[in-house]
Amino acid sequence: MNELPKYVLIVAGGRGLRMGEQLPKQFIPIAGKPVLMHTLDAFVRYDASVRLIVVLPESHQQYWQDLCREYNFSVPHQIATGGETRFHSVRNGLKLVNSSGLVAIHDGVRPLVTTDVIDACFRAAASDKAAIPVLPMIDSLREYNETGSMPVDRTRYCYVQTPQVFDSATVLSAYDVPFDECFTDDASVVEASGHPVTLVAGNRENIKITTPFDLLIAEAVLKGRTNI
Amino acid sequence: MNELPKYVLIVAGGRGLRMGEQLPKQFIPIAGKPVLMHTLDAFVRYDASVRLIVVLPESHQQYWQDLCREYNFSVPHQIATGGETRFHSVRNGLKLVNSSGLVAIHDGVRPLVTTDVIDACFRAAASDKAAIPVLPMIDSLREYNETGSMPVDRTRYCYVQTPQVFDSATVLSAYDVPFDECFTDDASVVEASGHPVTLVAGNRENIKITTPFDLLIAEAVLKGRTNI
Repeated sequence: MNELPKYVLIVAGGRGLRMGEQLPKQFIPIAGKPVLMHTLDAFVRYDASVRLIVVLPESHQQYWQDLCREYNFSVPHQIATGGETRFHSVRNGLKLVNSSGLVAIHDGVRPLVTTDVIDACFRAAASDKAAIPVLPMIDSLREYNETGSMPVDRTRYCYVQTPQVFDSATVLSAYDVPFDECFTDDASVVEASGHPVTLVAGNRENIKITTPFDLLIAEAVLKGRTNI
Repeated sequence: MNELPKYVLIVAGGRGLRMGEQLPKQFIPIAGKPVLMHTLDAFVRYDASVRLIVVLPESHQQYWQDLCREYNFSVPHQIATGGETRFHSVRNGLKLVNSSGLVAIHDGVRPLVTTDVIDACFRAAASDKAAIPVLPMIDSLREYNETGSMPVDRTRYCYVQTPQVFDSATVLSAYDVPFDECFTDDASVVEASGHPVTLVAGNRENIKITTPFDLLIAEAVLKGRTNI
């Protein structure tokens, strides 16, 4: 694999409104430390030389620094300030990408991504400039229409996770546009700029932690890994 | 709620090919007993008078009877024989529905359905004749097309779980047709017969157990409930 610098932009803007808890979900401790630290660890485990950028709302930054001290969390990372939407947060984080290389953009609340998936995404992005992890649908799928809803063939769809990895020039130029409602994820921003995206197989347990049920899953998986 | 008889058809036809294990996934013990027993328990907890029909491939029926003895599992149920596809299995099970009432069709490998969701589906089916539990998409969604894939708006879609509950006459008449590839679930069969389906909010942890990761989740949830 080429030795381009690898940036990892961890987006932790969520305010955890869906949790029914005060603490934003990226700060909730599971299996010994806050979710966000597990997420950073996942990338360091893949490659200790990655350049980590954590995007946090300004109001959370002091709290995060305090947590790092409390947990003796010493993984080096820069902080960028979150914006109004995820698009704006990512764009703020990208300002800290100051050399050519590859840029992974990853949700702060996806601590369960595996080394294999990170590696596969970086490799595909090194050759194709844009790569994202996807998974087949398990449940049946319906689409809403004007009159109600109708079943659709789930094999025609896949769901998309992160890290979404891009060539730095490609993603920086793609994000140099005004926000658009059709930007559902980073891949859609890059595609809107005219660049196709390569699909890579994701790992099923790489869930986005949005509910107490997800925290329970994540804790079970992390504890399971420790016991191996 | 009306006092129509309630049938519950549990489809346990899967051979567990995705598990990398010999034992079909419905027979794998988690939190003290096989998955399929937890599934039956979920319906008995909702209403002890439900009429349970378990659809099993002929080659699994003796094994299931042996398991019931081994675990002293005494929930009364009838056995129907599974067919070539899920459609054929359900149709075989429906032959044991011998009075007017409501019929829930549920995957044997979904032990985590809650009483609330079962109740909501039966209530909606009592008034509308057809009801299924759905959930909003969490991850981004893509659709494959001729040239690759493209992002689609996930808010236009929902994913569908079970139990899918129907008026007995409606579902019996809907299933009195030849198999069609477009039958993705029981709702699609009933809709193909011209009857609309009411959507009810499902519960997120009601996953379909298809991988070792799902077993881990299910065990964590079941143990969590026991500790409450």
